Amino acid sequence: MELHAMDRYIKSLIKEAGHKIRNSFISDITIETKSDANDLVTNIDKEIEQFFIERIRRDYPGHRIFGEEGFGDAIDDLSGVIWMLDPIDGTMNFVHQKRNFAISLGVYEDGKGKLGYIYDVVNDDLYHAVEGGGAYYNDEKLKSLAATSIEESIVAINASWLAPNKYIDHEAAIGLVRAVRGTRSYGSAALELAFLASGRIDAYVSMRLSPWDIAGGAVIAGEVGAVTTTFTGEPANLLKQDTFIAANPSIHNRMLSDYIRLK
Amino acid sequence: MELHAMDRYIKSLIKEAGHKIRNSFISDITIETKSDANDLVTNIDKEIEQFFIERIRRDYPGHRIFGEEGFGDAIDDLSGVIWMLDPIDGTMNFVHQKRNFAISLGVYEDGKGKLGYIYDVVNDDLYHAVEGGGAYYNDEKLKSLAATSIEESIVAINASWLAPNKYIDHEAAIGLVRAVRGTRSYGSAALELAFLASGRIDAYVSMRLSPWDIAGGAVIAGEVGAVTTTFTGEPANLLKQDTFIAANPSIHNRMLSDYIRLK
Repeated sequence: MELHAMDRYIKSLIKEAGHKIRNSFISDITIETKSDANDLVTNIDKEIEQFFIERIRRDYPGHRIFGEEGFGDAIDDLSGVIWMLDPIDGTMNFVHQKRNFAISLGVYEDGKGKLGYIYDVVNDDLYHAVEGGGAYYNDEKLKSLAATSIEESIVAINASWLAPNKYIDHEAAIGLVRAVRGTRSYGSAALELAFLASGRIDAYVSMRLSPWDIAGGAVIAGEVGAVTTTFTGEPANLLKQDTFIAANPSIHNRMLSDYIRLK
Repeated sequence: MELHAMDRYIKSLIKEAGHKIRNSFISDITIETKSDANDLVTNIDKEIEQFFIERIRRDYPGHRIFGEEGFGDAIDDLSGVIWMLDPIDGTMNFVHQKRNFAISLGVYEDGKGKLGYIYDVVNDDLYHAVEGGGAYYNDEKLKSLAATSIEESIVAINASWLAPNKYIDHEAAIGLVRAVRGTRSYGSAALELAFLASGRIDAYVSMRLSPWDIAGGAVIAGEVGAVTTTFTGEPANLLKQDTFIAANPSIHNRMLSDYIRLK
């Protein structure tokens, strides 16, 4: 693959999609629910995914597309080139806040992350990486993550994972909340990965994320040294919904061993 | 009081302070801890408070000042005019993220909120209100809050309040997390009040806030119809640290009656 040509192409495509999303604020947005009453989707999520797919199919035939809204391909293996796309990551924020959501895109070849993009649409902030070339926040190169400790860390975790749930021992997760310096929750996995990559938080954990939520961010975070795995320490799952942790390498192991207990 | 003249004066003062804070990013910031290892304060918090106090004492003699860093007056009653100031609300964000913190200022006369300001320093976004004149986000007038339900609400609550604590029944608070559409946590009470006033969240709760954390935001949120009280439903405490809820009026009562149980 010509990564640098693709990189330029993708940045242009993402900016165009961002423009469409910002324009949508002046028209009516249709909101539906998916798996449950709080799992929102809008006509804009669908239109933006279709916009990407149309362009990718025309300009990169042979590549496959794994998208949140399901207009792409059915993916059950990681062979070849796959674009993993969430057209609007943080749809609840998009609907309620008109901000704090992102376009998330990762391009993988035979399961290996090659290109990563997280575009904070309203702030016009692009986090991006080409494998091996470092990660960037707009034109600024992001520094490798400096070592820290659990006690000095800010961890992004949604409060819902501290309620009894079927994925993890919530009491152990409460122990994590008490051990760290602070917790935050922003409502967009992609932005939380971008904040990890830029050192604003030190870890992000979620019990249930899909490949398109993490694909772009994993490439970006990896370029500054962050570790991204499932809760069992396996590489992040790029084929189906799974647990997910992205963390500063100095705290990743201890977070899993001391505070995350899978049911 | 000449509220509109003071309003212009304060906006100018806040912008000047914001400029000083942004400039501080290029110099060294000295970090100390206060009540515990996670209660941070920096030389910039102190310098900015002193900057405000110097100006207010010169230009508004006779007014009293209640500031987080303690350079103001000892306040044990609400008579006369009191400026309630947090020079940097969200110091942990200031230190770790270099963003997501705010200057928070409320001016009260005989206990009644007259002027309110929350300045998101890095984004150069000013939320402001003059009593009776509505609330503004920069030059844009904020709408009165539309009625909502607990089930459709986004509530800002820090995960630490879902761990066993001495203030509230954390199991009941977990019930709140499960009942609402979503939760968020941004790490700055002032910004969370600004987000409430601008309709991005529907409520904000905290077990422990000080008058300067809430003084500016209460004026702004009040102008769009939000209700701000302690957990017992009393008016927000402007003399000492206390529990605090600010909410859309359509959900305030039910949040307190169904989900907040004081110990």
